[in-house]
Order: sequence, then C-alpha cells, then structure tokens
Amino acid sequence: GVMESLISYAEEQPPSSLMTNSSSLKQESNESGSPKCVGGFVLVHAGAGYHSESKAKEYKHVCKRACQRAVDQLRAGALAVEAVTAALVELEDSPFTNAGLGSNLNLSGEIECDASIMDGKSLHFGAVGSISGIKNPVLVANCLLNEAQKGKLSAGRIPPCFLVGPGAHDWAVSHGIPPCPSEKMATRFSLSAYKRNKRKMELAEGTVPGQNRTKKRRQSSENGNGSGCLDTVGAVVVDLEGNVAAAVSSGGLAMKHPGRIGQAAHYGCGCWAENSGNMNPYSTAVSTSGSPFLTSEDRVLGGVIVLRCCRCVEAQPSPNIQGILVEFLWSHTTESMCVGYMSAQDSKAKTHISRLPPGTVPGQSLAIEGGVCRLKGVVE
Amino acid sequence: GVMESLISYAEEQPPSSLMTNSSSLKQESNESGSPKCVGGFVLVHAGAGYHSESKAKEYKHVCKRACQRAVDQLRAGALAVEAVTAALVELEDSPFTNAGLGSNLNLSGEIECDASIMDGKSLHFGAVGSISGIKNPVLVANCLLNEAQKGKLSAGRIPPCFLVGPGAHDWAVSHGIPPCPSEKMATRFSLSAYKRNKRKMELAEGTVPGQNRTKKRRQSSENGNGSGCLDTVGAVVVDLEGNVAAAVSSGGLAMKHPGRIGQAAHYGCGCWAENSGNMNPYSTAVSTSGSPFLTSEDRVLGGVIVLRCCRCVEAQPSPNIQGILVEFLWSHTTESMCVGYMSAQDSKAKTHISRLPPGTVPGQSLAIEGGVCRLKGVVE
Repeated sequence: GVMESLISYAEEQPPSSLMTNSSSLKQESNESGSPKCVGGFVLVHAGAGYHSESKAKEYKHVCKRACQRAVDQLRAGALAVEAVTAALVELEDSPFTNAGLGSNLNLSGEIECDASIMDGKSLHFGAVGSISGIKNPVLVANCLLNEAQKGKLSAGRIPPCFLVGPGAHDWAVSHGIPPCPSEKMATRFSLSAYKRNKRKMELAEGTVPGQNRTKKRRQSSENGNGSGCLDTVGAVVVDLEGNVAAAVSSGGLAMKHPGRIGQAAHYGCGCWAENSGNMNPYSTAVSTSGSPFLTSEDRVLGGVIVLRCCRCVEAQPSPNIQGILVEFLWSHTTESMCVGYMSAQDSKAKTHISRLPPGTVPGQSLAIEGGVCRLKGVVE
Repeated sequence: GVMESLISYAEEQPPSSLMTNSSSLKQESNESGSPKCVGGFVLVHAGAGYHSESKAKEYKHVCKRACQRAVDQLRAGALAVEAVTAALVELEDSPFTNAGLGSNLNLSGEIECDASIMDGKSLHFGAVGSISGIKNPVLVANCLLNEAQKGKLSAGRIPPCFLVGPGAHDWAVSHGIPPCPSEKMATRFSLSAYKRNKRKMELAEGTVPGQNRTKKRRQSSENGNGSGCLDTVGAVVVDLEGNVAAAVSSGGLAMKHPGRIGQAAHYGCGCWAENSGNMNPYSTAVSTSGSPFLTSEDRVLGGVIVLRCCRCVEAQPSPNIQGILVEFLWSHTTESMCVGYMSAQDSKAKTHISRLPPGTVPGQSLAIEGGVCRLKGVVE
C-alpha cells in the first residue's frame, strides 16, 4: 500500500473505506422531527494505535459517552468549542485512553499531559504542555482560550495561550480548576506498563544488576514504542450555527523524558479549526494523532479525524429550510483507530474500530473511512 | 501604509528599501582570492522593537560579533547548523538583547527562555521552552537536534525534540551543558524594568497600598507591552555546500506568566530552514520575531529575516566555477530592527538599524530591505 492523499467526496458519491474490508459507514442523520435551530455534529476518536478485540468494547463505550456529552451540550445550545471540550473530558476520564487519567508514565514515573483546543469562530487557540496534577488538561486549554478572548490583562499584558509545566498547573488552579493528586491519575495498567518498560530499558542498557552486558544506549532495530504508545484522543464538532472546533489530548509517549512536549500541544499540529469565511465556503476541523516530527522514522504512524461542512438549502420540503452539510472522515496508518460520531438529531452515537486490512504493514498503509450527515435548520 | 507581501527580486533588480528613507543595502560580496570551497553567509538580527539612538551602537556591535562568530565557524568548515548556533550564542550573551543573559523577567521575577533551531539538510528541529538556569538556550536546542540525528534511544525510544521547564534544564545538564545561577542571568537593566513593570501592574490593578482605586484587572487602552518587549534574536545561515539553517532565541514577554511558551519555541513559527530538493530549486531559511498568536491584537508587531539561495554557474572567469547566489532580506512592522550580515569572503560584517519612516504607525506599516550576495566555489 502507498500513502494516498485524502480523498474528497460529494454526497452523491458515498465514500467507501479504502484498503479495508470493513463496510462503508455512510450515515444520513436526517431524521424528521428534530427541534428547530438546535443541533450539531461530533466526531471523536479514542486513539490511533492497536486496539485488541478484548478491549474493543471499552474503547467503543468511551467514544459513545464522549459523543453523548458533546451532543448534550449542543442540544442545550452550547457552542462548538464547549461541546468539543465536553467530549474531551469524557475521553480523558477513561482509564483506557492515553490522556488524562491513565496516561503513559514518563521516565521518572510521572504523568505529564499535553492538550490543545482551537475555536474556528475566533481562531483562538489554547494549549498546555507537560502539565501534571490536573485530571483534565483540556479544561486548562479551554480556560486559556476563554481568558484570551476576554482581552488584555492588567497593564496591557497579552494573555498566554500556551503554558507548560508547573506554571501551567499553578495557572489552572488559580483559575478554579482543581488539582488532582498524581497517584490518582495512574492506573494499575499504566503502573505495570511502566515497570515493564523500565525493565526493558535496563535490559537494553545493560544496567540490570548481575547481568554481564556491555552498555548499549542506542539501537535502531527493535521498536519499543509500539503503536499503542502513540495514542492520543481527539474530537471535532460543528454546532448548528456552523461554528467548528477541534481538540486533542495526550499523555505522550511512554518513558518520555520529563518536559517533553508532543504534537498534541503544538499550534497547527494537534488540532485545527477554521470557520468558513470570505475566501472559503467550508468550515473545517481536524484533530490528529501521531507526530509530525517522525520524518526520520522508518514508519509513519498516525491518525486523523476531519470534519468539513458548508451551508446548503434544502429543496424539500420547503426552500426556507436551510441546513448544514457535514462531511467527516477518519484515517490512520496504525493498526487500528477507534471512532464514534453522532449528530444532535440522532438518538445514540455510532462507534467503530477501523482496522488496516490483514497483511498490510502499519506505517506503510493507510485506511480512510467517512460519511456524510445533513443538519436541518430553519432560515432566520 | 498597508501590509505588503514580501517582494521577490532578482540580482538584476537590486531591492530598494520600501517605505523607508534609508539607502538600499545591496551587497555584492564577490571579492576575488577567496579560498576554494570555503565560505558561506550569515544574516542575524538583535531584535525587532525599538532601538534608541543611544543604544544603537551596542546593538550593531553585538550583530557584528555574532556574524564574525558564524563566519569563523564557516571558514573552519562547519556546517550551517553549527554556524547559526555560534551566532546565536553571541546574541544571547549580550546583556542588551532579550535572549539568554539579560532576558525579560516573568511575573515571578524569574527568567524563562525559549529557543529553537532547524537544520535545512535533515529537516531536524530542536526546541526548548520556559527553560531556566541555562545561559545559552540555543545550545540545548542544538544538542536536542544533534541527539535526534543519532537515532533512537535505548529500548527503541524516540528522542525528544522539544523539552520544557525543569525537564529541559535537567536534560541539558545531563548532556554536558553547564547550569548557570539565575542571579547571573539578570542584569541591572532587566531588574529595574521588572520593578517598573511590577509597579505599573499594581497601579493598574489598584493593589498599591494606601491607594484608593477599584480593582481593574483588564484594560484594552494602554499597551504596557511596548514593542521593545517583543524582542527576539535570530540568525539564518548558508554554508558553501548550500545547506541552510535557522535559529531563534527569546526571553519572551516581560511579566509573562511562568510556563508561558512564546513563538520562538514553536515548530514552524520561530524559525524554518529547508534545503533545495527535487521539487524546489531554492534553499530557504527564516527566523521570526513577534507572535503569530496576535491575530486579535490591534497592532501586529513583528520582524523577520529571510535567506534564499540557489546554485548558479559563473560565466566568468571560467565555466567550471560554480557559486551560490544568496538573496537576503529583513522586514519589520516594529519601529526598528537591528541586523548584521557577512559572507565568509568579507573581512567584516555590515550592520544596520532599519527604521520605519517618520510619521508611520508601528504595526500598520512595514519596512523591507535586503540584498544579494554571490558565493564562489569550484565544481568538484
């Protein structure tokens, strides 16, 4: 398989899943009887990496809950940026995702998280990196975004949009986000993975007591960063006003050096959201998994969720019903990616674990799947 | 004045300075008798902001020294990325620049620096953010870049390219970069600026004892972040092999919140370098000052230095002499910007303080100046 560029498709041409055996997931969330001017759509993912069949249920379940949380917000009239935050909180709270609670431990056995959020309406961006002792890093990123929208601080100081480390933690607490003891953020699974990784490192470096091996600091053969370690969670949302937002959150690589910042905190890397404008009829929101800094890697492992939408006029039943056409897709080069999506017109979320077809090589093959959803609205 | 897009020009059309009264600085570094296959070119800046006439000499002097350091490296056969690091060290070591020694103090009265570097040959990138107690942040960024080029760490771990806070400091020290006591990094000037800013904040917030004012946390009228506070230093280099590199270093905004990361540490924001390739005949290196996150600001204050080069064949004196044509420019919306440039064929650097013309408004007008330099080489 060769890396393919993302395909763009129209509603008349339902996207088929490329290079996978799973069925096309075209979705027409077009039920009648939806409330006027209330709606929106959310697409989430719980990580691009490797999802065992045994854990599939858990990952699908957290995606379903995250979609529900976002839709609850949208139905209550929340903007896209609030709904995407709600989805991320749910994804972070799952002990099975590498974000917030249950994140990978770093070299020192501590949890340091990255998260960022972007509002397509204002183009404001908020991010935290290497933050410890906060259960939901996305809440800090969202709070930074909200504070930035209030304008300058005293004496004309420009508010921050990206805070890291202890400074980020202190800022969060001073803005009403409660601290969380580090020991409550680690899980039995993350602690045992840390011990296993630590042992693997000691073996590789020949520092295991009583073992007679020469020290070997570097190696290129074995890849200890199994694709599971690249896990990130993310969400993209459009509200019925057509505003888009995107967010991403990650515990980063297992055994990373303390202070290491991953792509989830990088402006223009982890997420992007941009409403339609004069030059562009489409609103777009993107959230990525994997690293843009892997150019020298032999395998490029990553995933992405994308949402693109534009206003459209319904021919039926009445020309004064205006809607939003939402195109969405997910794509990954990892073995699997777990996604969920839901519109405010749906009664429940759809979830799916997308997998590369058997026999393909992660990092060299690409899966793309997606669908279309039409949101109804009434012209004001 | 209206924001103008950067002009591109050919050697036959020497660039004139736009919207300024200063003379065109076209430079033909084309002296004969230069050593074979030894050369290169460097362009540096000591900050886009406001440079008083009284300090002009100091700023020009540090630019001159930075150019000399880079050229010393180039003459000794160093690659662009090593030469650009040498230039940055000199710029950081000046107590007059907002980078390394003499950086702005943050809200807690501490120095936290950002720096990044990019190698156009490998496209590797190294960055540190919010790092304290290190005299030359660019050395840490360069060390991260060098370590990343060595490949994976033990147990297949991917080396970091962006470290922040205490983790960045500890990594630097463990890689042989000596720590520097914080009190040695502050200057009399930066300490008095801190006290002045602190007082201004207390006045704005109404927290000065005995003063009867209501608390006013936000304001939009007065801009306490004078353009001088946006200062950043940077350099772009091409070596005679045609490799380019770029670097940037900054102490960040005065009175910033601890942990705040500025554009100097952001991938794709503070600097960029990319050698020519199959699809692109030009090598390009860019270093910026000012923030890409100022979209909501009433004024966009910033500066940039750019270097673009391509191989060319000399018609005279012999067709087997191949050279590199270097086009370079600086541009700023701030009141002034201090630059220096030098080729390995020059005996000393040229320095210049570019200023917006009288009567123009910083943030609404743009100055562009530049030149062309031809580096000689012999076809191998």
